[in-house]
Amino acid sequence: MRYELYYWPGIQGRGEYVRLALEDAGAPYVDVARVPEKEGGGVAAMTRLLDGADTRRPPFAPPFLMAGRQLIGQTANILLFLGSRLDLAPRDAAGKLWAHQLQLTIADFLTEVHDTHHPLGPHLYYEQQRPAAKRRAKAFLAQRLPKFLDYFERVLRANAASGPGIVGARISYVDLSLAQVVAGLRYAFPSASRAALANCPRQCALHDEVFARPRLKRYLKSERRLPFNNDDLFRRYPELDG
Amino acid sequence: MRYELYYWPGIQGRGEYVRLALEDAGAPYVDVARVPEKEGGGVAAMTRLLDGADTRRPPFAPPFLMAGRQLIGQTANILLFLGSRLDLAPRDAAGKLWAHQLQLTIADFLTEVHDTHHPLGPHLYYEQQRPAAKRRAKAFLAQRLPKFLDYFERVLRANAASGPGIVGARISYVDLSLAQVVAGLRYAFPSASRAALANCPRQCALHDEVFARPRLKRYLKSERRLPFNNDDLFRRYPELDG
Repeated sequence: MRYELYYWPGIQGRGEYVRLALEDAGAPYVDVARVPEKEGGGVAAMTRLLDGADTRRPPFAPPFLMAGRQLIGQTANILLFLGSRLDLAPRDAAGKLWAHQLQLTIADFLTEVHDTHHPLGPHLYYEQQRPAAKRRAKAFLAQRLPKFLDYFERVLRANAASGPGIVGARISYVDLSLAQVVAGLRYAFPSASRAALANCPRQCALHDEVFARPRLKRYLKSERRLPFNNDDLFRRYPELDG
Repeated sequence: MRYELYYWPGIQGRGEYVRLALEDAGAPYVDVARVPEKEGGGVAAMTRLLDGADTRRPPFAPPFLMAGRQLIGQTANILLFLGSRLDLAPRDAAGKLWAHQLQLTIADFLTEVHDTHHPLGPHLYYEQQRPAAKRRAKAFLAQRLPKFLDYFERVLRANAASGPGIVGARISYVDLSLAQVVAGLRYAFPSASRAALANCPRQCALHDEVFARPRLKRYLKSERRLPFNNDDLFRRYPELDG
């Protein structure tokens, strides 16, 4: 099975959580919007599926995945689907549901990260909403960031007897996502995340373990891994870094 | 199986999407936080599970559901679990995933609805962020509301040959949720939603069909259905209504 991933070509964004799972599993895939348009790729190919009248089950937004003839949207839903196929999820039904629940909590966390630089909505540039962003970011760093990190640290601690990751005996797609969140926080909020992560040794260790996995190590050195940048979900604006 | 639902006792909120599924299926359940504390209920019972050191798989936030010994959090995840058990979801794996994808899109929609009155974050009262809320609500009503409604209308239209709802041949939990969204929009934005829903005859019809289902009709008349109010996700602030 050769998967087709559709996501904005210039950012890691939410697509990165899917890329990390595909890369870690060594699954063959095409990052379609990064293929030149004249070869059938580009954003045009993505838009065709999003808006096409003949798309039977259209996603609302990228990322989405084509697996054979099945088109699947919503990051956490894609990972729910891929988790079993790529052997990156618990094998029992209750474990799968629990992993998915954690992934949905990561999704909520990411929405709040995004809102730090776009509290007034996606229709304005950051520069048009900077005072509001400062207020939102301040509250995020003071209250929400530690709340989320404490939660994940607690869940990691509770699973420590079973495995190296957050659920079950083996590394799962949730671990890959959580490691990516740690990397993103360090990029966006170098100062505030240093302080917050000082209380989260398990998340720091998980980050290192995940990105030391042979396939992910190679991926990070490849051109397929886009750099963090300020068009992305995690953005580095020093004035927002507490 | 007698389910235990845990959610804030004074609002419909995200718990309502779970309540509607349980009520429509006639499933026995207890709304634990609405049971008096001296009978083992109340917010205290909810907090015990959220913060309890012996909670094996703690949810991050309400709502959550106890089904036997399984504790399940995240609204869409609870509905993914209940959908099959309550016969409110497609029976094939691809259909289940598609229904869940739509539910996650509804969850994103709800987050944006919430952000109209709390753009600067949950730590401030609405009255402390009214100018920002006005800007955010204006953009939401102009751009995001029609985008979401158009999307769901399109998906309903595409499924019209198969069934009365948005997926498959029968009414699903996604339909119950979408009907609740229509009701919420009408409460929060009576003027703007009237204009927006004028282009969405299928969502209006679905709303009427869902709330005319015998069990839901009885539920709406019961004391178990809490009224919309301004501590909730959908809030009526006339100054935000376009």
